[in-house]
Amino acid sequence: MSNYKKVDDKDIQFFKALLPNRVFYGEAISADYGRDEMLEYGRFMPEAVLQAQSTQEVSQIMHYCNEQNIPVTPRGSGTGLCGGCVAIHGGVVLSLEKMNRVLEIDTSNMTATVEPGLLIIDFPKHLENTGLFYPPDPGEKTATIGGNAMTNAGGMKAVRFGVTRDYILGLEMVLPDGEIITLGGKTVKTSSGYPLMQLMIGSEGTLGVLTKLIVKLIPLPKENISLLISFDNLDECINSVPAVLASGCNPTAVEFMEREVIKSAEKYLGKQFPDSNADAYLLVRLDAESSDSLSLMVQILTDTLLDLGAKDVLMADTDERKESIWDPRGAFLEAINNSTPKMDECDVVVPRDRIAEFVRTSIKIGKENNIRLCSFGHAGDGNLHIYVCKDDLSDEAWKQTNARVMDALYNEAYRLGGEVSGEHGIGHAKRRFLLESVGERQMELMRGIKKVFDKNNILNPGKVVIG
Amino acid sequence: MSNYKKVDDKDIQFFKALLPNRVFYGEAISADYGRDEMLEYGRFMPEAVLQAQSTQEVSQIMHYCNEQNIPVTPRGSGTGLCGGCVAIHGGVVLSLEKMNRVLEIDTSNMTATVEPGLLIIDFPKHLENTGLFYPPDPGEKTATIGGNAMTNAGGMKAVRFGVTRDYILGLEMVLPDGEIITLGGKTVKTSSGYPLMQLMIGSEGTLGVLTKLIVKLIPLPKENISLLISFDNLDECINSVPAVLASGCNPTAVEFMEREVIKSAEKYLGKQFPDSNADAYLLVRLDAESSDSLSLMVQILTDTLLDLGAKDVLMADTDERKESIWDPRGAFLEAINNSTPKMDECDVVVPRDRIAEFVRTSIKIGKENNIRLCSFGHAGDGNLHIYVCKDDLSDEAWKQTNARVMDALYNEAYRLGGEVSGEHGIGHAKRRFLLESVGERQMELMRGIKKVFDKNNILNPGKVVIG
Repeated sequence: MSNYKKVDDKDIQFFKALLPNRVFYGEAISADYGRDEMLEYGRFMPEAVLQAQSTQEVSQIMHYCNEQNIPVTPRGSGTGLCGGCVAIHGGVVLSLEKMNRVLEIDTSNMTATVEPGLLIIDFPKHLENTGLFYPPDPGEKTATIGGNAMTNAGGMKAVRFGVTRDYILGLEMVLPDGEIITLGGKTVKTSSGYPLMQLMIGSEGTLGVLTKLIVKLIPLPKENISLLISFDNLDECINSVPAVLASGCNPTAVEFMEREVIKSAEKYLGKQFPDSNADAYLLVRLDAESSDSLSLMVQILTDTLLDLGAKDVLMADTDERKESIWDPRGAFLEAINNSTPKMDECDVVVPRDRIAEFVRTSIKIGKENNIRLCSFGHAGDGNLHIYVCKDDLSDEAWKQTNARVMDALYNEAYRLGGEVSGEHGIGHAKRRFLLESVGERQMELMRGIKKVFDKNNILNPGKVVIG
Repeated sequence: MSNYKKVDDKDIQFFKALLPNRVFYGEAISADYGRDEMLEYGRFMPEAVLQAQSTQEVSQIMHYCNEQNIPVTPRGSGTGLCGGCVAIHGGVVLSLEKMNRVLEIDTSNMTATVEPGLLIIDFPKHLENTGLFYPPDPGEKTATIGGNAMTNAGGMKAVRFGVTRDYILGLEMVLPDGEIITLGGKTVKTSSGYPLMQLMIGSEGTLGVLTKLIVKLIPLPKENISLLISFDNLDECINSVPAVLASGCNPTAVEFMEREVIKSAEKYLGKQFPDSNADAYLLVRLDAESSDSLSLMVQILTDTLLDLGAKDVLMADTDERKESIWDPRGAFLEAINNSTPKMDECDVVVPRDRIAEFVRTSIKIGKENNIRLCSFGHAGDGNLHIYVCKDDLSDEAWKQTNARVMDALYNEAYRLGGEVSGEHGIGHAKRRFLLESVGERQMELMRGIKKVFDKNNILNPGKVVIG
């Protein structure tokens, strides 16, 4: 399986002729290309980094590498958290960073056609004055839209607007042997054979290289507000979520956070959060077509939450106030990362009514194992991010404790009807947990599918399914 | 490939022991089991019909038939339009009609767990008093929810609420060799390996037999109204659709219909439509949380549409008035079917801004070929239903003309960036058009996937992909 050819001078010559000034090898490769955002999952330096600028280039690279038996690892901006874009078998990293154009905004079909390297943070400015927006809103704004598609990223606004999958209408993919296929298009529904496009979404760059996306846009709601609701304890906080969801207010985002995580973010950003005296907070965003209906929603939610034991409801209706809440929220991951020499992450998703139970158990698991756990997450959709922090543990103790804690967390998630990953994916780091979760037969089906698309196992090998 | 074993006495004995009183063979098989709703696609009587009542029974049937090399065609209520549930290679029809229970309504997770044989028409009564509803709303109300899932049915409300895929959270499937797998669950987002559940949706019962679904429910909007808008001609009617979609009113349904189709429905039902003097109509449904916001929407839409040349806007705000419009709409297919000895259907989907062009060309194609075409459809999502009517053509002339017209219609759809089927699927009748549309490589990928799941090609053979 892993008997791949090493990249040699002849290969470099070929790549250089194809991609002038966009081939890096040996010492010229930036260390960043050896890892993603989760250092725990190791450093794997590729033999060469190729920066493609067109579908044709991607096609020629794949055709060549498939013929030459050189593994190819596609990569966006490397913000993943499971080692999905690192070259664990060496070979070539195929960077799509430079394919970052917005090719078309089609207001009558309400679609955008974009290249995969477009950063999520750069997309909104292309939509100014169209009255339209692209809802998926992952915390990591320097992620690429291609990476979001390949992991089916969720983000804050999934509660109301759904995940990346819900906004993909068409994909152009380069198959492992270099053939270019287009899936879907500007049509908004389809029942035309096996849904290959759906299969590609969330496949983490193991079945084809994504070179173009057609995404759905929706009318931008006219008004929005964020509410920061404080609670005496995490239980009350999380127990209030079903009532928020059932309120008829159709919240855009429902996040929960604990004081400790907020404190880390304050320290990391050097900025005060509007309120950090309570033990636990719910952060709710509402969008509406008019200020009247927004006011009505705020009224309903405030009454509901105070009845359920909330201490206070802080309203953020100015840009400044909104930023004072959402900026720290966006920095949680980095803040935690900054607070410990090493960490590991568990991105499970459980049924929404089991969140409280999962969080309670996770706290217990942390205490039993005498290790610091930080958690926050998307209370509205059941997707939790639990970070296990090494702090001052020895390397050996960290390794053992982390393994034990991860096992306990994932087992609890399975017990509650949860899944391994809500939005970060499997990469190479979570394959064992995926197998435990879905069982051997489903893994066998996945391996079979991988083989249909990539019979030489040349494209992003060792990710998701292959050992 | 098609060298299947015939069902013999021994097989019947096995089935009878497994399913007392639920095995039919020979003369005892109702003629209905030989066809679906589109007579044009022929009659194929199975050798036996088995009515399963549990997942375990389905599993045992599949295990046995896989061992014995007997093809199995799963079937709901047989309301499909592409021959997807008929046994074109003989063998067994596996009916899921009797697996029609609602197993659980979970109001805190807003999910329902149901069996595949549940009829769409029977589902709402199980949701009464929960404040929740299941949005997918295909015209054919006696379809099963399992059939809807297996074709990714769309329906009227797809404009706002999306298609069946958007409401499926979990599936229990029996693989062709009898193994039972569960995909997804009550979780609302996932990034946990290849999305096998997504692959199953729309696979038309060729990769596994669906035995249980977990579907998403959403809060029932409190108020709704329907508007029937008349136009002098089809062009003006369809050209107004983008403005309706961009109005900020988030319409639930946007249907178009021509006078001729309405007249057929009036005749068929023996009931008058509220207005049938105009050449073309748009039918818009709006849902809202309050009557105030509904009134505001109606105002905005009415102004917009009258500006764009609408002749009149008729408001249906009572149940009686709503029925007087939606009942005929629901009967269009049967009304057309009743008006001609034979017909064929084209269920293409095109980008929304190409609908007018497609409809114009289709009228031209009908005229050039001197044959009657009836069309109506989901203007809001670009999915059109064009019916080619045999009327008094000879069988030979019908065959030739229909083939020519179908080719012309599908070619026009591809040219406009459309796809073969918006919601009815491929079955055995549309395989040629699927191939033309997606090309050989994608068909090869689909055949590869089929083989991964069903290496003996025992499950619903000859559908979607296999010749």
